[in-house]
Amino acid sequence: MCKKKIDPVFILVKPQMGENIGASARAMLNFGFKNMRLVSPRDGWPNPRADALASGAGRVLLNASCHQTTIDACSDLTYIFATTARNRDLTKKIRSPRKAARFIKKLLDKGERVGILFGSERAGLENSDIVKARSIISIPVNISFSSINLSQSVIVLAYELFLRGVSSHAKSTTISSKENFASIIEIETLQRSLESQLDASGYFWPEEKKNSLVENLRNLIGRLPLTSSDIRTLHGMFKTLHTKSKKLNQDP
Amino acid sequence: MCKKKIDPVFILVKPQMGENIGASARAMLNFGFKNMRLVSPRDGWPNPRADALASGAGRVLLNASCHQTTIDACSDLTYIFATTARNRDLTKKIRSPRKAARFIKKLLDKGERVGILFGSERAGLENSDIVKARSIISIPVNISFSSINLSQSVIVLAYELFLRGVSSHAKSTTISSKENFASIIEIETLQRSLESQLDASGYFWPEEKKNSLVENLRNLIGRLPLTSSDIRTLHGMFKTLHTKSKKLNQDP
Repeated sequence: MCKKKIDPVFILVKPQMGENIGASARAMLNFGFKNMRLVSPRDGWPNPRADALASGAGRVLLNASCHQTTIDACSDLTYIFATTARNRDLTKKIRSPRKAARFIKKLLDKGERVGILFGSERAGLENSDIVKARSIISIPVNISFSSINLSQSVIVLAYELFLRGVSSHAKSTTISSKENFASIIEIETLQRSLESQLDASGYFWPEEKKNSLVENLRNLIGRLPLTSSDIRTLHGMFKTLHTKSKKLNQDP
Repeated sequence: MCKKKIDPVFILVKPQMGENIGASARAMLNFGFKNMRLVSPRDGWPNPRADALASGAGRVLLNASCHQTTIDACSDLTYIFATTARNRDLTKKIRSPRKAARFIKKLLDKGERVGILFGSERAGLENSDIVKARSIISIPVNISFSSINLSQSVIVLAYELFLRGVSSHAKSTTISSKENFASIIEIETLQRSLESQLDASGYFWPEEKKNSLVENLRNLIGRLPLTSSDIRTLHGMFKTLHTKSKKLNQDP
């Protein structure tokens, strides 16, 4: 399989202030990164406050795509990181920016398409977004004052990635790889299919626990290093299980 | 000599926007640093725009001292770094933030009092400030877009210093050291004395070259690892030379 190698994508999820989007664009370009995507920015898009703070990095904003959901924004990517400072009680590997940069370099060299999620200024990423990520990046901070500005988180990541030689300055090269991780949209489709099958089978019981059960499940699937071929296998497996359980219920 | 060990001091020289001062305070506190000093902020001090952007780090701003000149702001410090992205053609050692953090750790362990100068948003530090520094810290960046926001430079330094275990979270300990570097005010006094002696001796000739000759001289003195005892020696030496040259001129 031949794919275009792309620089990591910086995905700002529900950013509130245009100023922070502009400052993030500038921070990215300071270290040679140009791929920005936005998920449901509070004040719409484009946003003149972002342009004002980009200080010459307007081209990053011009090329930024705007999406309604995190899944849309990640649909062509194969490895998603979530950045968070808070402990989320989710079973995911957590890396420092430095270790993450080293790991991302390896992923890119293998042809993976990497995205990094950054949460909103108010509360960071929601758990429903974090569970979509394969693993977590956490910036080590002063525990008594850990709330980092959005664009400041962006620059710490961009800085570490730059030092690791990750940014290509928009030059793209063609590389080959035997098998890549499944795209986020493939994983999402699997999850939805699995959830509806489980729902139909009465798995989510009692009703008030459904949300947390779904979240646990998404977290589990989200962190597995699944390939497209694995996804097909799981689809078939879940479908078989589901059909069989229906038959058993119908024919006692 | 017994001295209080202090965390590095972040010195913002001629900052223009209050927002950047506030964002810098927040960035510092994210990594446990509380020592901020300001030199001649454009919009005066205190500045409500700074408070607005500090987001909980107002205590850093409250404790920040405001000075008219860089020398005033550095008077009790013994080792000054200048941060700059541009090549200044000055003969000073240049370190990356990572290497600087390692070096600063050693300086602090020896009882040095370290300051880091950050320049204004418009043009960074002026050469007249850079020459006061013992050495330079340069953040490696995308050469085609190297202008980093003030608070972003601050966070990169704070982050590296934090990883190196430099921030004490305001706990202070008493340590001892045999001999420390001279304070900035001692060096400044030496420089002024030397300049007036040289001026009187007709060294700065032709007149239009005086500024660049002074700058070269300050750069030279500024980067030497001088102790208080060295300063006294040099004072005596320069005075002797100057007096002797006057006598020679008077008594041919």
